[in-house]
Amino acid sequence: MKWRTIFPFLVWGREYDRGLLAQDMLAALIVTIMLVPQSLAYAMLAGLPAHVGLYASILPLIAYAAFGSSRTLAVGPVAVVSLMTAAAAGAVAAPGSLAYQQAALALALLSGVILAAMAILRLGVLANFLSHPVISGFISASGILIAVSQLRHLLGLEARGDTLSELLPQLAGNIGQTNLPTLAIGLMSLAFLFWVRRRLRPLLVRVGLAPRLADILAKAGPVFAVIASILAVRLFDLTASGVRVVGDVPAGLPPLALPSFDPGLWLELLPAAVLISLVGFVESVSVAQTLAARRRQRIDANQELVGLGAANFAASFSGGFPVTGGFARSVVNFDAGAATPLAGAFTAIAIALATLLLAPLFADLPQAVLAATIVVAVLSLVDIGAMRRVLAYSRSDFAAMALTILLVLLAGIEAGILGGVMLSLLLFLWRTSRPHMAVVGQVPGSEHFRNVERHRVVVSPTVLSLRVDESLYFANARYLEERVYDLVAARPGIRHVVLMCPAVNFIDASALESLEAIVHRLHAAGVEFHLSEVKGPVMDRLARSDFLQHLTGRVFLSQHQAMRELDAATSEAAASAAGPATGQAG
Amino acid sequence: MKWRTIFPFLVWGREYDRGLLAQDMLAALIVTIMLVPQSLAYAMLAGLPAHVGLYASILPLIAYAAFGSSRTLAVGPVAVVSLMTAAAAGAVAAPGSLAYQQAALALALLSGVILAAMAILRLGVLANFLSHPVISGFISASGILIAVSQLRHLLGLEARGDTLSELLPQLAGNIGQTNLPTLAIGLMSLAFLFWVRRRLRPLLVRVGLAPRLADILAKAGPVFAVIASILAVRLFDLTASGVRVVGDVPAGLPPLALPSFDPGLWLELLPAAVLISLVGFVESVSVAQTLAARRRQRIDANQELVGLGAANFAASFSGGFPVTGGFARSVVNFDAGAATPLAGAFTAIAIALATLLLAPLFADLPQAVLAATIVVAVLSLVDIGAMRRVLAYSRSDFAAMALTILLVLLAGIEAGILGGVMLSLLLFLWRTSRPHMAVVGQVPGSEHFRNVERHRVVVSPTVLSLRVDESLYFANARYLEERVYDLVAARPGIRHVVLMCPAVNFIDASALESLEAIVHRLHAAGVEFHLSEVKGPVMDRLARSDFLQHLTGRVFLSQHQAMRELDAATSEAAASAAGPATGQAG
Repeated sequence: MKWRTIFPFLVWGREYDRGLLAQDMLAALIVTIMLVPQSLAYAMLAGLPAHVGLYASILPLIAYAAFGSSRTLAVGPVAVVSLMTAAAAGAVAAPGSLAYQQAALALALLSGVILAAMAILRLGVLANFLSHPVISGFISASGILIAVSQLRHLLGLEARGDTLSELLPQLAGNIGQTNLPTLAIGLMSLAFLFWVRRRLRPLLVRVGLAPRLADILAKAGPVFAVIASILAVRLFDLTASGVRVVGDVPAGLPPLALPSFDPGLWLELLPAAVLISLVGFVESVSVAQTLAARRRQRIDANQELVGLGAANFAASFSGGFPVTGGFARSVVNFDAGAATPLAGAFTAIAIALATLLLAPLFADLPQAVLAATIVVAVLSLVDIGAMRRVLAYSRSDFAAMALTILLVLLAGIEAGILGGVMLSLLLFLWRTSRPHMAVVGQVPGSEHFRNVERHRVVVSPTVLSLRVDESLYFANARYLEERVYDLVAARPGIRHVVLMCPAVNFIDASALESLEAIVHRLHAAGVEFHLSEVKGPVMDRLARSDFLQHLTGRVFLSQHQAMRELDAATSEAAASAAGPATGQAG
Repeated sequence: MKWRTIFPFLVWGREYDRGLLAQDMLAALIVTIMLVPQSLAYAMLAGLPAHVGLYASILPLIAYAAFGSSRTLAVGPVAVVSLMTAAAAGAVAAPGSLAYQQAALALALLSGVILAAMAILRLGVLANFLSHPVISGFISASGILIAVSQLRHLLGLEARGDTLSELLPQLAGNIGQTNLPTLAIGLMSLAFLFWVRRRLRPLLVRVGLAPRLADILAKAGPVFAVIASILAVRLFDLTASGVRVVGDVPAGLPPLALPSFDPGLWLELLPAAVLISLVGFVESVSVAQTLAARRRQRIDANQELVGLGAANFAASFSGGFPVTGGFARSVVNFDAGAATPLAGAFTAIAIALATLLLAPLFADLPQAVLAATIVVAVLSLVDIGAMRRVLAYSRSDFAAMALTILLVLLAGIEAGILGGVMLSLLLFLWRTSRPHMAVVGQVPGSEHFRNVERHRVVVSPTVLSLRVDESLYFANARYLEERVYDLVAARPGIRHVVLMCPAVNFIDASALESLEAIVHRLHAAGVEFHLSEVKGPVMDRLARSDFLQHLTGRVFLSQHQAMRELDAATSEAAASAAGPATGQAG
C-alpha cells in the first residue's frame, strides 16, 4: 500500500492496455507540438539559451510520470516560474553568463530539495497561506510584467529589469533604436498567433474538418509561425538587417551532470527557491485537482510535492531550470485523451527526438517570434474579471490583491508575494480580532433568541444576553472584555451576563484569561457571568482548567434555559429586596 | 464631548471636593514611599544613574494625570521596561556613557511618538497580537533575567549581558572576585525585604496596629533598608571596603531639555521602541482595566495610549527614560484610596520634593540594596502557576509560552517577544487551517443532526451531510476542498453533498473560489452541492458574487429541510431509474 503511494505507476500500470497506450501516444503528440515552441520561449523568458527549455522538457517529464499523482498534469517550463527564475538568477549573475546558467540549475536543485522536504515534513499546507486573491493578483501582474519584458525582443532594442519601474524608462529611452525588420516580424507573429488562437479552430470546423483535428491544428499555430519565420530569416538573410535569432543550438541530448556545489550561492538563492517551489506547487496542484475531479480521480497533494520535487531534481541534473505543471498544456493533454502519466513520458521522448533532429533548425528562429508566443500566452494570465469579482465580493481581499499587483509590478515578484501574504494574514487577524457580537432577546412566544437591533424581541432588564460569532483567541480576547464592560457599564440594572457561544469553536489560553478577568471584575461589581450553548470540545477543554470552579455563574445548555432560570431568580431577588435599584453596584 | 475624551480631567475635575483631595493626598504619600527606592533601583536596572529614576517619576506622572483615562493607574519606571531599555540602549552605546543616557531619552521620545501615533491611527488593537501566554512567559522570563542580572550588584563583581548565556559564564568566572561586605549587605537586604513582604504586615496587625497603618509600614520596608544601609555605609566607611554605592547625585529638579536630534540613532532604536511601547501599553492597560472594573469605571484604551504617550514625551524632555503603568504601585494607589489622577500629580510633587531634599543622601546608598529591592520585586513576576495552567489547558499555547521564555533567556528580549508572537500567529492559523468537520446524520425521530462518529444517527445513501465548524478562508479553503473530494470519492453512491454552515462566520474570496471549484468539479462528476444554515451576513456577501447563480444545488434554511427535499428527490429518481447504482458517475 505504501509503495503504491510512492510509485503511483504500480496502481495505473496494472490496468494498462493497448487502448490506453493509443490514447496516451496521441495526447503526447499534441502536447509536444504545443510544448516545443513554448519551451524555447520560456527559456528565453528565463534569460537562458533557448535549448535549455527543451532540456527542461525531457527528464523532468519522465520523473513526474514516475512519481506524480495526477494522471494528466503536463509538466515543464511555465511562464511565471520562468520569470521568477530570471529575477532570482539575475540577482546573482549576469544574463548570458555561465554563472547565470549555474544559478538556474541551482534553483531547480533547491526547488527539488524544498519540495521533497515539504513532502517529508508534510508541509504542503504551507501553500494554503497563499490566498487566492494573492495568487490571482500575482499571476495577473506577472502576465503584465512578462509581456512588457518581451517588448524589447519585439522591438529589437535593449531594456532589462525585474520591475516596470526599471523596464519602462529603458523602453521609452531606447525606442529610437527599434529594429524595423524585427518589429515587422514581431507584429506579424502577434497578429497571426492571436488570429490562430481566436479564429482558426472555428474556421477549420466550418470548412469541414473534424473538431478534433481542427483542435490539433489550432494548437500547432506557434509551430507554423516558427517554421515560417525560420524560412523568412534564411530567405531574406534577415540577421544581416539586425534581426536577432536564437543562434547556435547544441545538437544532441541534454548533458547529464551534477549542478555545481556552492553553498554560498544556494543560501543566496534559497528565499527565491522557496517562493518558486510554493508558487509552482500551488499552480500545479490546482490544475491537477481541476482535471482529476472531472474524472472523479484523486490528487494526493503530498505526492504532488514528491512528483514536482523529482521533476526539478531531474531538471537540475540535465541542464534545465525550474519546472512545474502548466495550465494550458495540461488541459490540452486532458482533452487529447491522456489516460495515464505515460502520456508525459511519451511527450518527453517526442521532445528528445525534436531536440536531436530539429535543434539545428532553431538557430535561425527570430527571438521576436518567441517573444510573440510568450506575449500571446501570458496576456491570458491577466484576469481582469477576477479583480472585478474580488472587488465586488470583499474589500479586504481586494486590498491584498491590489497590494500584490502593485508590488509585483513596481518592487518585484518576491516583494509582491510576501507583501500580499502578510497583508492577507493581517487582514484575517484583523477580521477575527473584531468579531461580530449581538445583544440578543427572546422572540416572543418561542425559544429563539435574536439580535435586538434586527428583530422585535423581549429583553430582560436584569439579564444581558450576548452572542459572540467567532472563536475566542488572543487577538479578540481583549475586544470581548471591552465590549462586555462597556455593555454592563451602560446598563446599571444588569445583574447577570450570559455569553452565548454556539459559534465559538475554540477558546485559547488568552481568551480563557479574559473570561476569568470578566468573571472576577463583573463579580466585584455585583454582576454574575454565565455561558450558554458551549460546544462539546470547547467544554471539554474548559474542564481541563479551573475556570469552571472560578465561574461565579453557570453554564447553561441553552439560552432559553438560562433566561428561564436567571430571569426568575432575578425577579425573586428583586421581589424580596426593596427593588431592582439595589442590584446596582456602588 | 470631544474635549472631555482628550482631557479626562474635564470630567472628574467637576466633581472634585475636599474629601477626594484628602484621599488623593494620602494615596500619593504612600505611593511615594514605595516609589522612591523603586525609581532608583529601576534606573540602575536600566543601566542609568539612580537619580534618572526620580526624574522619570515627576513630569511623566503629571502628564499621565492630565491625559490618562484611568483614575488610579500609577505611572513611572517599571522593571520589565527598564530591562528592555537597558538592552536597547546597551546595543548602541556603552553603559555609563553620555550616549547611553541619550539613547534612553531617545527611547522615551520614540515611545511617546509611537504611542501617540497608535492613538491617532487607532492602532491600540495591535497590542492584542501579544497573546497572554507570550506576555506571561515574557514577564516570567524577564523576572528571571533581571534577578540574574542583579547578582553582580549583590556579589560586587563584574558581569554584563542581555541573556543568561552571556551573564552566567561571567558570573561563574568572576565568582572569586566577590566582595564580601557587598555580599553581606545584599544578603541582609534580601532577607529583610522578603521578611517585610511576607511577615511584617500580619505581625503589625497582631501587635495591635490598624490594618491600614500596618499596610503603609509594610510598603515602607524598602525605605527602611535604604536608610539603614546609608547609615551603615557612613558609619563603617564601607566604600573603602569596596562596597559600591550610588555615588554623587545631582541636587535639584530634572533639567528641561530636548533630547538630541539624531535620526540615525532613532532609526536604530525604533524596533526596540515599538516593543517597549507595546509591552508597556499592554501591561498598563490590563492593570488599569482590572482596577477600573472594581469600581465599574471605564478605561478607554485609545486614551490610555494618549496618556502613556504624554508620559513618555514628558520623560524624554525631563532627563528620564521610558515609563509605563506599574502593577504593584497601582494596586497600592488604588487600595490607599486614590480617587482621581490628581493622586498621581501629588505623587509627582512628593517625589520632586524628595529629589530636592534627599538626593544628596542617596550618594552613599549601596547598589546591593537597590539590587535586593529589584530581586524581591521581580521574583514575584515569575509565575510558575501560569505556566502550569497554560500547559494543562492547551499545548499550542504552552508552546508559544515556552518558546518566548527560552528565547528571552537565551537570545534576548526582542527575539523572545517576536518569536512568541510569530509562533502564536502560526499556531492560530494552523488551528483554523484544519477546521473540525463532521459527517452528520439525523437523530432518529428528531430534526437534529449529529456527528455520525459520536451518535447513532440515520444517514442517507445518496446525500452526504457535512458540517464545518470554522469560518472558511484561504488557509482552510483547500483543506475543505480535499475533504469534500475525498469523502465523495469514498462514497460512489452519493448524489448530493450538503455543507452545513451554522459555525461559518465569514467566507473569504479564496474560500468562495474553492466553493465554486467544488460546485463545478462535483457537478462534472454528477454530484450536486448544496449549502444549509448559512448565516445572514454570510448570505448577504455571497449574494454580492455570482456564486449563487453558479451553485447547481440550493441553499436550505435548515439541514432538516435539505434532507427532506433531497432525500425524497433522490428516492424518486432512484425509483424511476433502474436502481441507485445508476446514480454513480463514470
